[in-house]
Amino acid sequence: MTVELISVGTEILLGNIVNTNAAYLAEKIAVLGLSCYHQSAVGDNEERMEDAIRLALSRSDIVILSGGLGPTKDDLTKEVTAKVFGKKLVEDPHTRERIQNYFDRIKNPDGITSNNWKQALVPEGATVVDNHNGTAPGLILENEDGRIAILLPGPPNEIKPMFERDIAPYLNRLQPEGIYSKMVKVCSIGESRAETIVADLMDAQTNPTLAPYAKTGEVHFRVTAKAKDEETANALMEPMIEELYHRFGDKIYTTEEEVTLEEAVVALLKEKQMTVTTAESCTGGLLAGRIMNVPGASLVYNEGYITYSNGAKEKLLGVSPGTLEMYGAVSAETAAEMAEGAARAAEANAALSVTGIAGPDGGTKEKPVGLVYVGCCVNGKVRTERFLFTGNREKNRDYAVVRALTLLREELICL
Amino acid sequence: MTVELISVGTEILLGNIVNTNAAYLAEKIAVLGLSCYHQSAVGDNEERMEDAIRLALSRSDIVILSGGLGPTKDDLTKEVTAKVFGKKLVEDPHTRERIQNYFDRIKNPDGITSNNWKQALVPEGATVVDNHNGTAPGLILENEDGRIAILLPGPPNEIKPMFERDIAPYLNRLQPEGIYSKMVKVCSIGESRAETIVADLMDAQTNPTLAPYAKTGEVHFRVTAKAKDEETANALMEPMIEELYHRFGDKIYTTEEEVTLEEAVVALLKEKQMTVTTAESCTGGLLAGRIMNVPGASLVYNEGYITYSNGAKEKLLGVSPGTLEMYGAVSAETAAEMAEGAARAAEANAALSVTGIAGPDGGTKEKPVGLVYVGCCVNGKVRTERFLFTGNREKNRDYAVVRALTLLREELICL
Repeated sequence: MTVELISVGTEILLGNIVNTNAAYLAEKIAVLGLSCYHQSAVGDNEERMEDAIRLALSRSDIVILSGGLGPTKDDLTKEVTAKVFGKKLVEDPHTRERIQNYFDRIKNPDGITSNNWKQALVPEGATVVDNHNGTAPGLILENEDGRIAILLPGPPNEIKPMFERDIAPYLNRLQPEGIYSKMVKVCSIGESRAETIVADLMDAQTNPTLAPYAKTGEVHFRVTAKAKDEETANALMEPMIEELYHRFGDKIYTTEEEVTLEEAVVALLKEKQMTVTTAESCTGGLLAGRIMNVPGASLVYNEGYITYSNGAKEKLLGVSPGTLEMYGAVSAETAAEMAEGAARAAEANAALSVTGIAGPDGGTKEKPVGLVYVGCCVNGKVRTERFLFTGNREKNRDYAVVRALTLLREELICL
Repeated sequence: MTVELISVGTEILLGNIVNTNAAYLAEKIAVLGLSCYHQSAVGDNEERMEDAIRLALSRSDIVILSGGLGPTKDDLTKEVTAKVFGKKLVEDPHTRERIQNYFDRIKNPDGITSNNWKQALVPEGATVVDNHNGTAPGLILENEDGRIAILLPGPPNEIKPMFERDIAPYLNRLQPEGIYSKMVKVCSIGESRAETIVADLMDAQTNPTLAPYAKTGEVHFRVTAKAKDEETANALMEPMIEELYHRFGDKIYTTEEEVTLEEAVVALLKEKQMTVTTAESCTGGLLAGRIMNVPGASLVYNEGYITYSNGAKEKLLGVSPGTLEMYGAVSAETAAEMAEGAARAAEANAALSVTGIAGPDGGTKEKPVGLVYVGCCVNGKVRTERFLFTGNREKNRDYAVVRALTLLREELICL
């Protein structure tokens, strides 16, 4: 089955927003084993939207439209789709009640305007999909040829939960066999090395399949099975996941789609009842920011240091002037003393340090742009690693953050 | 004139990458005063790409294709476009020489493979646009009806400079009058208030026009003039920009498209030969990270503190236990002592502090999620501000960073 995406919104045509919904939906559709050959964007214009929908229905089995379901006159997706399907709009009492409840719960009920009741109108015969994060319901329509249009709201915090909860299972039910998948996330290894390790599995893949995705400093493997139900799919995926554990061991930090590396590290620290601190030079707070973005990180993180100047490294972390002079600020020796000193100053069980040359300037022949040392001190034991990243300033800093988290994780799982 | 965008690449259809090129091109096209009614994405498939190009040429004056100009067999954009325009591919000696030079300069010349010479082939009669950041040249083709196809490379670091340098001027030359614009960036004011202040200007706009863009904690106004050349356009824009300065005064931090708020703040600090430090609780390093992302920020920033726990606020910043007990960690009093203490500890001329409840948890009736206090100490003088942000954790942290930078800027320009 083929699926086609139409993103609706003048703000997309004007470039005021980046169309992240299209990337989100495209990835989900690929994961479900459906083919997507076309994506398009149209504005809030009746004629062009109608043309786009008719064209899409002529060449694809399923058309997913996102956006244009709001309460204003500009929002036309529902009206135009109903016209194309030859349906009139009728009020859905269930949706009207949900809108009333939404305003009672979230906002002042006086905030409902007559516009809002427009969102309770649905094309006759359409399947209504409840929106648990807004007032515009999702809608599914089918024409006499069996072609399907799925209308979804535009805001990412509405479309994503609706897709996960209702649309993905619906699409799975349309297929003779459903598609189920798990994500095996691996760190501490490069992309090409990781792919070499599973080359035979990738060559031999049938059901489940195995697909690698390179992320900044990580490799994710999607294991996907076709099966009549989730239980059967899990049974098919289990040996593959076991084999991946056999090959990558504790380099796998999660098999949960939503869990990030920083969440895995914070969870490890909580489990071991340890605290961590950070001493950052070239990453200038990004590493701490990443750790602190995990809700509840305050249980494992009390304080941290940004030490750009040599003076700050000496004063806050106790790095010795001799080390700075002999080896320089960007050196394994300095990274080690930064990590040790940070753990001591913060009275933390663990500490990460980063010192490097992020670019674009400041590189020399001996110490080029992209050279970064990461230090990790756990229970007084220090380890450092040297990296030579080849990206721009932003990318080099991102990589340094991921490699620092990876190094801490490696040390923690050895305890 | 109408412009249509076609993004080429299976990685877009699979959702492996977010299509930022489309947003970039769409914004630039709107700024040039051209209309864009359609965007689409197709994969590296000959038949579907041909259909997409023919459809686009049937309804738009200009089609811009991005991607698919690489050296591999998968890359088909040039081949398919040449077919649609009835042109054969011929080697362009100038491009061949550029490719040779590129490899000599950037890479090992042994790295050239026979594939690379494919990039020197161009459709007969096409205008070749040099690529200063890669090996695939841009190409411009025109058919007998005067419809135009512009082929651009896919990597953002190649497409952007090529568009700025050659494609935007080319598109301007196609129009009876060119479109020129400047961006006036305003901080220290909310979006609706800013728009009210210029409501009469927006009502009366003809040439130049005035368009507001809300950014996180900032408002940007684009002033756009139609004129036969840049000089005339500048003369048209000047009174409008003067009028904006008259109304917003020093809330305008730049009229340069590329200058960010943090760059403006770092430039102010450099100009005044001052240093700054940061003491962060809920933003956990993001504020420092933003400042340090400005190349050369090391001239104004030596060290900073992440003080999540009360203990850290006392120890590193000298916040008094009495203040923490009486007013709580999230209070104007604590924010003030954090800023003062940070400036003292870092021996910096200026300090910013942030303390708040970013969410999702930790809110109470008195101190709800989104409550943030920002402190600013400049030459010993302290000022605090209270904010109640209504976003999620990430958004609240972003707003806090911008408002902190704004506060520092306000204090610096008063000196």
